[in-house]
Amino acid sequence: MKTRIIAILTGNGKGKTTSAVGTIIRALGHGHRVLLLQFMKETESGEIKFLKTLRNPNLKIIQSGRGFFKIKGDHSTEETHKKYATLAIKLLQKELKSFSPTLTVLDEINTACSLGLTDAKQVVESIMKNPKTHFILTGRNAPKEFRTIANLITEMKEVKHPFNEGIHAQAGMEF
Amino acid sequence: MKTRIIAILTGNGKGKTTSAVGTIIRALGHGHRVLLLQFMKETESGEIKFLKTLRNPNLKIIQSGRGFFKIKGDHSTEETHKKYATLAIKLLQKELKSFSPTLTVLDEINTACSLGLTDAKQVVESIMKNPKTHFILTGRNAPKEFRTIANLITEMKEVKHPFNEGIHAQAGMEF
Repeated sequence: MKTRIIAILTGNGKGKTTSAVGTIIRALGHGHRVLLLQFMKETESGEIKFLKTLRNPNLKIIQSGRGFFKIKGDHSTEETHKKYATLAIKLLQKELKSFSPTLTVLDEINTACSLGLTDAKQVVESIMKNPKTHFILTGRNAPKEFRTIANLITEMKEVKHPFNEGIHAQAGMEF
Repeated sequence: MKTRIIAILTGNGKGKTTSAVGTIIRALGHGHRVLLLQFMKETESGEIKFLKTLRNPNLKIIQSGRGFFKIKGDHSTEETHKKYATLAIKLLQKELKSFSPTLTVLDEINTACSLGLTDAKQVVESIMKNPKTHFILTGRNAPKEFRTIANLITEMKEVKHPFNEGIHAQAGMEF
């Protein structure tokens, strides 16, 4: 690693998680060790299904979330959501030590912080304590704390979206 | 497929090709057939290396390009660049028939069109003739012809980029 990258993928447009997954594939192609930690998610999307079938020892995948929060489909209390986010942070701290990845993807961490499920400062602490791994932080509404320490920020801007034309989410494209 | 998606990933920010690659992984996870056709590119990036090792019969990868065009690193004549782009279009037309993908990624096609290496109208024709595959069109400066037919457009906006801080491209992150 020449310089450690702290990247934020934010904005309301499509492409944040898929871009992180693409970078995981890129990093694996170079033989890097990758930790993918998903906040808030609980279902096996196409990409998680596929990544798991790889059984690649250089890739560790952890999901610690309960899905939709305070919108249609939410089936958990706020306390439960917070419990899963707190667990995710603990697992992050553990894996940074034991697995020692060279790329760490914290998927939906921006959303989890902006909704108050976990504290951005705690995440920043973990990032700063571990300078030997790149970080990718995805999700809408990236908090200021992340923007300050990041050296790469891309905002995915929605210009056109099929949902607005009444087209529903489809397997293989949206999840 | 409920509705065919024609997606554009454009803008000057990082995340266009990686997002397309992530969507490929997502689609493969659902058992879809994917064609990845790269315009302008000639080197094996980390993601191409990795995707090739999968030897997945549902994924076909084709590169037909000569790399940098009219900037530092360009080692080909304009005629040669155009020849490779023309070949790419022919291969696209052939594979849409014989391989019949359900997701077709045309990587850097926006750039190739905006630089005049190939004609957007020809690409639009191929897209409209093949309504049974989703399309993802990546690269800066997406032409109007694509924007008109697309039902999903994300603009990747560069907010911060490490190159601007003098940090060079790194394996596993940038390529």
